[in-house]
Amino acid sequence: MSRRLIVQKFGGSSLANVKRIQSVAKRIVSYKKQGCDLVVVVSALGDTTDELVELAHKINPEPSEREMDMLLSTGEQISVALLAMAIHKLGYEAISFTGAQVGIITDASHTRARIIRINTDKIKEELRKGRIVIVAGFQGVTLNQDITTLGRGGSDLTAVALAKELKVDECQIYTDVEGVYTADPRIVPQARKLKYITFDEMLEMASLGAQVMQARSIEVAKKFNVTIHVRSSFNNKLGTMIVKEVKKMEEVVVSAVTLNKNEAKITICDVPDRPGIAAKLFKELSSAGINVDMIVQNVSHIRKTDISFTVNKQDLLKTVKVTKKVAKEIRAGDVIQDEDIARVSIVGVGMKSHPGVAANMFDTLAKNKINIEMISTSDISISCIIKKKFAEIAVRALHDKFGLSKKG
Amino acid sequence: MSRRLIVQKFGGSSLANVKRIQSVAKRIVSYKKQGCDLVVVVSALGDTTDELVELAHKINPEPSEREMDMLLSTGEQISVALLAMAIHKLGYEAISFTGAQVGIITDASHTRARIIRINTDKIKEELRKGRIVIVAGFQGVTLNQDITTLGRGGSDLTAVALAKELKVDECQIYTDVEGVYTADPRIVPQARKLKYITFDEMLEMASLGAQVMQARSIEVAKKFNVTIHVRSSFNNKLGTMIVKEVKKMEEVVVSAVTLNKNEAKITICDVPDRPGIAAKLFKELSSAGINVDMIVQNVSHIRKTDISFTVNKQDLLKTVKVTKKVAKEIRAGDVIQDEDIARVSIVGVGMKSHPGVAANMFDTLAKNKINIEMISTSDISISCIIKKKFAEIAVRALHDKFGLSKKG
Repeated sequence: MSRRLIVQKFGGSSLANVKRIQSVAKRIVSYKKQGCDLVVVVSALGDTTDELVELAHKINPEPSEREMDMLLSTGEQISVALLAMAIHKLGYEAISFTGAQVGIITDASHTRARIIRINTDKIKEELRKGRIVIVAGFQGVTLNQDITTLGRGGSDLTAVALAKELKVDECQIYTDVEGVYTADPRIVPQARKLKYITFDEMLEMASLGAQVMQARSIEVAKKFNVTIHVRSSFNNKLGTMIVKEVKKMEEVVVSAVTLNKNEAKITICDVPDRPGIAAKLFKELSSAGINVDMIVQNVSHIRKTDISFTVNKQDLLKTVKVTKKVAKEIRAGDVIQDEDIARVSIVGVGMKSHPGVAANMFDTLAKNKINIEMISTSDISISCIIKKKFAEIAVRALHDKFGLSKKG
Repeated sequence: MSRRLIVQKFGGSSLANVKRIQSVAKRIVSYKKQGCDLVVVVSALGDTTDELVELAHKINPEPSEREMDMLLSTGEQISVALLAMAIHKLGYEAISFTGAQVGIITDASHTRARIIRINTDKIKEELRKGRIVIVAGFQGVTLNQDITTLGRGGSDLTAVALAKELKVDECQIYTDVEGVYTADPRIVPQARKLKYITFDEMLEMASLGAQVMQARSIEVAKKFNVTIHVRSSFNNKLGTMIVKEVKKMEEVVVSAVTLNKNEAKITICDVPDRPGIAAKLFKELSSAGINVDMIVQNVSHIRKTDISFTVNKQDLLKTVKVTKKVAKEIRAGDVIQDEDIARVSIVGVGMKSHPGVAANMFDTLAKNKINIEMISTSDISISCIIKKKFAEIAVRALHDKFGLSKKG
């Protein structure tokens, strides 16, 4: 009979102090006692990564990316060693590995490396010996033996990639929330934890501001159909399963409402309505490393048009600078910035086949006297930019409208 | 014309904060500007290692040595990355390596590994590119890719071993003192910094309590005749050269006076004077991991004798326990412990050919009314155990007697 093989990933908040490390060790051992083989992926303790980044910037405001990876990878290395010690204390065998030791080979794009391949021989050998294998998340190594990191949230990617290579039965992602909710429970007390959600919906939610898991790791899970179980490291409740397809008893149109208050809106007025103008603007923003999110171009009035778009707030200053430069070059009018906005979105694979969903959303906002400033849609989501002060009202109203609340 | 190749090693106190790291970077660059090729070895920042050890012990009072090495090696990895960033900031090329990356292959004796060999290809390749090479001290890797550490002060060993392999012109050890002194300047204000000292004398001083360099690294330097320059990282003064042989204008008999207040004395009274008794005691102490230092057995009186020995104070409790057990088994008398002692020693290769040195030492102590409790001698040193309260008086008197003070 083949034993159950599980990958478990624990984030920094689950390992923020000695007590939590011991508690994580106990949870791992409880699975071992049930007869599971375990590969555990960990992030750096608490805020270690942020502290190291800060230290580096004190020494060099523009640190070399290779050296940054050398520095940051120590965070996860500390975690694996301490967690192994905590498991030993409970009387179980465990062995820790860095990304390099375990053979997570990446390209040389430091600070955002992509995994090329994983050699799982070493892990399998240790599992055969009956040991719990603990792997440093977030990191890998180039063929030239340089240490790399996989970008923010990269430990999720390590876990999913290992789960895929090892063909595990389940990939458990432990975090500080109990799973994926129909809306943020701090805003909507009636929000329901979803038992299942599809990869597509989860991806959409990640890009719409839900911070449960790194988007890239969900892409990989989707590509290789790795079932993920997102759950809390602070209790034993089942969380949310992220799966390829959800077979539902009754068809659900909308799965969740998300909110993102970290965006700012920029409008460039009176843009000459000629081909290539928008391309020029967004090419320059992209060259400056700015990720543009929603883009709306209003209908043209007498050969002039307004273009609005949103960016992450932390890029606002840089964005305005670039946009003003371009506006001058193309002889456009004023550049207006607005931080006082929120993006509220509904997500659900069911809406593809339900044409009335958008109308329902707009109607709900209108009934609550909330003006819509921008609209953007995808196959499985609809987003509206509204004034920030209406954000919570909008989320609650939509959550209610689409029947997402707890039953009973 | 071949360029000068130098190994520089910086300890934790030289890297205790951002400012010091920047200052170390400036010093390295100043050598680069002079046309030197540089390989730099660093320890962990400030007290990082102690802090990690403490954290580990909170999680597991008896941590696995393999995991301890995994944990502690992160300290030096942080240092190399930050120092490389600091050098980049000054506009010079530098690249950092872990012990594993640079090919410092060791045996598998975790926490006290021995270097088997060093592959210097990578270092030479980077030096050819004109880069300053920064290597994490204190660590290596087994052939099985497990991370190891070389024991306390192991960064000195890394530096000396690299200096040997690379056949460098000079191995500079930067520390928080200006060099090797004829006595501790805090005790003897007239103490003189030695321009030269032999490997043998330095080794003797290290074992007698001088904490300038790790003893093992001096052994390796002696074996391969690697000239070492011990100097301060806080100024530009020349320090002390540790060399094979010192050619002196006038023959110096005694080079330095050392003091060690970290020992305790144990006496086991009325030991039956039979063969094998002492062997039994010291075998049991050794099995308990206790390093015994001086041993004195007094002349026998009516088939009974007293045996006295010294150990490091931190081993005192354990030592007394083992000794009492053995005393009972061999039907000896009381076991007496004494922490109120100090060991004062004189060191010098010249004393081999000067028979009067010991007498001179004892006479000096006697004239200062200091009673000698134990005496131990080697080829190039004489040590006396005295009451702790007389320690400083003894050191000053001997320093004066053997003409070690500054001239003028």
